[in-house]
Amino acid sequence: MAGTLESVESCLERHIPPEELAEVKRILYGGEARKLSLPAAALSAAQERDFELQGYGFDAEPEQLRRPRIVRVGLIQNKIALPTDTAVSVQVAALHRRIAEIVEVAAKSGVNIVCFQEAWTMPFAFCTREKLPWTEFAESAEDGPTTKFCQELAKKYNMVVISPILERDETHGGTLWNTAVVISSSGAVLGKSRKNHIPRVGDFNESTYYMEGNTGHPVFQTQFGTIAVNICYGRHHPLNWLMFSMNGAEIIFNPSATVGKLSESMWPIEARNAAIANHCFTCPINRVGMEYYKNAFTSGDGGKAHHDLGYFYGSSYVAAPDGSRTPGLSRGRDGLLVVEMDLNLCRQVSDKWNFKMTGRYEMYADKLTEAVQPCFVPNIIKERASH
Amino acid sequence: MAGTLESVESCLERHIPPEELAEVKRILYGGEARKLSLPAAALSAAQERDFELQGYGFDAEPEQLRRPRIVRVGLIQNKIALPTDTAVSVQVAALHRRIAEIVEVAAKSGVNIVCFQEAWTMPFAFCTREKLPWTEFAESAEDGPTTKFCQELAKKYNMVVISPILERDETHGGTLWNTAVVISSSGAVLGKSRKNHIPRVGDFNESTYYMEGNTGHPVFQTQFGTIAVNICYGRHHPLNWLMFSMNGAEIIFNPSATVGKLSESMWPIEARNAAIANHCFTCPINRVGMEYYKNAFTSGDGGKAHHDLGYFYGSSYVAAPDGSRTPGLSRGRDGLLVVEMDLNLCRQVSDKWNFKMTGRYEMYADKLTEAVQPCFVPNIIKERASH
Repeated sequence: MAGTLESVESCLERHIPPEELAEVKRILYGGEARKLSLPAAALSAAQERDFELQGYGFDAEPEQLRRPRIVRVGLIQNKIALPTDTAVSVQVAALHRRIAEIVEVAAKSGVNIVCFQEAWTMPFAFCTREKLPWTEFAESAEDGPTTKFCQELAKKYNMVVISPILERDETHGGTLWNTAVVISSSGAVLGKSRKNHIPRVGDFNESTYYMEGNTGHPVFQTQFGTIAVNICYGRHHPLNWLMFSMNGAEIIFNPSATVGKLSESMWPIEARNAAIANHCFTCPINRVGMEYYKNAFTSGDGGKAHHDLGYFYGSSYVAAPDGSRTPGLSRGRDGLLVVEMDLNLCRQVSDKWNFKMTGRYEMYADKLTEAVQPCFVPNIIKERASH
Repeated sequence: MAGTLESVESCLERHIPPEELAEVKRILYGGEARKLSLPAAALSAAQERDFELQGYGFDAEPEQLRRPRIVRVGLIQNKIALPTDTAVSVQVAALHRRIAEIVEVAAKSGVNIVCFQEAWTMPFAFCTREKLPWTEFAESAEDGPTTKFCQELAKKYNMVVISPILERDETHGGTLWNTAVVISSSGAVLGKSRKNHIPRVGDFNESTYYMEGNTGHPVFQTQFGTIAVNICYGRHHPLNWLMFSMNGAEIIFNPSATVGKLSESMWPIEARNAAIANHCFTCPINRVGMEYYKNAFTSGDGGKAHHDLGYFYGSSYVAAPDGSRTPGLSRGRDGLLVVEMDLNLCRQVSDKWNFKMTGRYEMYADKLTEAVQPCFVPNIIKERASH
């Protein structure tokens, strides 16, 4: 279980006196995020459907030559809808229904780009190392039932949909990939972005199922902004964020599945650092809840065989290029985070801090090229023996 | 002024009930840092000399083939000792005296490697854009008076000393550099590491005084551990941290000078992200207090000419490779942070998370090499006109 703490942010709100709270928020979160006023119909629908709905906004300075480029993104975090031993097709259908009712509220809230969590149509069953039935959740990125479902949503709501699924690639030997499908607001499949870095940590036995992605760092120019998708463990790799940014991404989504014991203290750091380092918005999303498996598995830690991976702690948030961030969604409930942003902030912060200009990438291209050679000799300075 | 908040950490301690506090600390800081028990003589000397003294420890698992590699680092943050219009040599002498009395306490506290703040012998006068008298603070890294002073400290206490100064390089046309001199516990100058990335942000007009460093990413193998120095603004550049780590650094110091309005919400993020991403310890140090200049200067922000850069907020801390960190020193007082660490933790965390193994550096070396070409075409996917 995620324990009793709903979120760090709500705990600070409850206990710290207002005058100190403002300072704490300034230092910890870059200030008080502006609250969005969301339509009553959206708020009541969220309550009825039992999910949290929060809205925040990031502003930019007015410019002379560019209008504000306002976009609303929606981040959805959710539990699986049915037990993991339910028939595959029934589980998928239940998740489609759940997401459809949350996306409807996103539309009411004015969301332009929505992103679901990693492998959102399935339990995160890679801990089991079993192939069946879990690989049956894999679908074609181009025309699988989930992509078709998302295309309908996109057209219905004029919304860009990012749908991270387990992909079956029939044109390349039926291989599996961990893939985000990006669907334009017109309903067209714009393209896909495969997970670039695959974990071998704890129970995240994903390397048993699929390989490092081969789609590079594509950036998608949508009606609402230039976006990219850095899937889950790619969050830990600063170079992965950097290359999405080099290709022009202003918003980088990070659909994830990660558990409390492993990564909860790293979660507030990494995506936010990426927003700062790359002068862009980042949107980390984590699922919530516990997922139980019929067959026990071990964790390579000397512990007993068990039936779950631990709790997914939610806490989805948005980080801005200026070092600020929104509060996170809760650690245990389904939720929709609606964040309005003026994309002009990216270039404004870039012109202020100049990390791209001062980045000395030529030097690093050379140094990395050297460092990966088998004959690489690290630059280590030792004390001379004479001393 | 730094305001009324001594530090975020002390504010949380005061207001949040114990059972919730433990959870908050786990999520925000990776848990409760182990407190070091420091000698009474050190604690009383610190009190007498009016500086904060805090001690924490990070542990690692026992291994069969390696003994624990325990090292104690000391981070010193301080105000300037005299007004900025005092004679240069008098200011330097006063700072030498102040540091000597803090280092003596570091020695009593068992510190093996001590690091001072950026350009520690001078006010951070680059905001003024005046050349005299500020460039007179520059010294030879190899045999300047400050290096000699540090060599004496090193020998006296068997301590590695990292001394970040404004360097005058007489053998290359008398150029200036922002340089950390690394002095072995034997008293020998092991080498130097120049600031790789130079800011052009706010009042940090350092590019008026010196250029991007040309010493690369040297790592120093000392008696107590393999260390590197990433100076100040290099903190914002993930590739800078990465190359120090690629060369084998287990502890990366980050002597800095940065002010509240500019960077305080980024401070807890960047060095900590670097510790996580590179499986090493990072040690960011920031000076404290206000520094007033006789001649007013403007800030390029439409505001009135004024006499200070704003307040330096201290808050020096140590981040560990496992995502945890110590509390910070205070936001306004001189201080010494003593942190004991078992360097075996670096490889243990690396073997757990495998960021180096999964980093795909060959791919990034190629991609960066492409990205820096004038003819680089970003990988942007647009909707086809037919839709």
